[in-house]
Amino acid sequence: MKVPRAERLVDMTNHILNHPREHISLSFFAQRYDSAKSSISEDLVIIKKTFKARGIGELSTNVGAAGGVTYIPFIQEHDADAFAKEMFEKVNDPTRVLPGGYIYLSDILADPQVLKMFGRLIATQYKNDDIQAVMTVATKGIPVAMAVAQELNVPYVVARSGANKVTEGPTISTPFTTGTTKQVNKLELSTRSLKKQQNIIIVDDFMKAGGTIIGLQDLAREFEANVKGIAVFAEGRAKERQVEDFTSLIHVDTNLESGEVIKVQLGNYKKIFMGK
Amino acid sequence: MKVPRAERLVDMTNHILNHPREHISLSFFAQRYDSAKSSISEDLVIIKKTFKARGIGELSTNVGAAGGVTYIPFIQEHDADAFAKEMFEKVNDPTRVLPGGYIYLSDILADPQVLKMFGRLIATQYKNDDIQAVMTVATKGIPVAMAVAQELNVPYVVARSGANKVTEGPTISTPFTTGTTKQVNKLELSTRSLKKQQNIIIVDDFMKAGGTIIGLQDLAREFEANVKGIAVFAEGRAKERQVEDFTSLIHVDTNLESGEVIKVQLGNYKKIFMGK
Repeated sequence: MKVPRAERLVDMTNHILNHPREHISLSFFAQRYDSAKSSISEDLVIIKKTFKARGIGELSTNVGAAGGVTYIPFIQEHDADAFAKEMFEKVNDPTRVLPGGYIYLSDILADPQVLKMFGRLIATQYKNDDIQAVMTVATKGIPVAMAVAQELNVPYVVARSGANKVTEGPTISTPFTTGTTKQVNKLELSTRSLKKQQNIIIVDDFMKAGGTIIGLQDLAREFEANVKGIAVFAEGRAKERQVEDFTSLIHVDTNLESGEVIKVQLGNYKKIFMGK
Repeated sequence: MKVPRAERLVDMTNHILNHPREHISLSFFAQRYDSAKSSISEDLVIIKKTFKARGIGELSTNVGAAGGVTYIPFIQEHDADAFAKEMFEKVNDPTRVLPGGYIYLSDILADPQVLKMFGRLIATQYKNDDIQAVMTVATKGIPVAMAVAQELNVPYVVARSGANKVTEGPTISTPFTTGTTKQVNKLELSTRSLKKQQNIIIVDDFMKAGGTIIGLQDLAREFEANVKGIAVFAEGRAKERQVEDFTSLIHVDTNLESGEVIKVQLGNYKKIFMGK
């Protein structure tokens, strides 16, 4: 039974949103709605136009026998700015300051809407790259990594510092030094969790000197992964920054002597929109 | 400028899907599209009908001056069955068996599509309940809890066993015993992360004897929380099960003497659809 356009548009929008970065063929929709491919093509023109106008993402279409559509989620710069400003106002609260130049973020990073926006922001940065996995470190990196992975529609992998549990099976580990406390520890990742030679990005909640990120890069090398970028929700200030090229939403300035937080400001996320 | 119906349907569908369990007023849409509320009402009838027909969820509408719509995500039983079958086939693989009656699940629980389906399944169970937070324990509970929290559009909170990090601030802790190894440990949760007297559900990846779940229930009691239910991705078999009332997608049978996995089967998730 033919499905009318109005219903097609609703169901197609849902289906497309649930399958980011996957090619969906015209035939799939034509069959699903018992409709001509020409009608489906017209639907897709409407969806594409609306997604663009509303900043939902890009619908890239290809025509011909193997024709279809791929949805690339992204956000527009003004939406990113509004999100960054909202996050800045939440984070910029003296009661969030914890000893050692840390900021309490767990409640913010527990909000599904915040995670979705952050995921979409980072997915925007890599919208033209073929990213195959997102790597992070337990525990607090997991939600932000998962949020990014959802928008890229790829798996995330979780390294652990310290002892791995038996439920991981065989692992590969690398030593790392936290830049702040200079403690040596090890990072471990299950050999099953990441295929060799994949394009990955590294995502974490907070970076100070960057020792953990360096450790993750070393671990990625053991898996012959190609690290295409690094993104953190917040960067803290450190005496010696070991990582230079990364994206952050929030920047936390600390007194380098005492470690006290002195200022919260926006991170360097604007670079995502440079030249776009 | 008036937005035509086709574009409204696409954008409304996206907006509604991104705001589950939130009341959205007719006025919001009327203003957004410079359209009469009567037209918006007609749009909502189409969306409601399509969501129902395609098993996307329930659109509950109320009319009048404060009229609007609330989207309750759920899945239909046959979609849940297909998902459970797919998961069963993945999990039922001898190479996944690890010592102690555990099964390697990390790759499965790293797939955004799997997490989304599991989240939606559990959200279906609580679709008529006012759940305010999802509680879990680090590390492996986080992705499943986050997936459920996303569908319920509520925050998730993460207890940790062992030493908490300074970035959590003040915590409340309770002791717990793992039913399998009888080790005593403690579970800790930041006092800031969960408000008092909330309705919560407890979600984890794997349960054997249920000692961790008991510990989470004790911790919830310290926060005066009302535990409305427990859900796990997979349940293992244990000699003495301490938790009776829970929902599971997958059931892993083990030899109670040797701890070896002897059979993988479906969990008890069908009860979600009883009488619905």
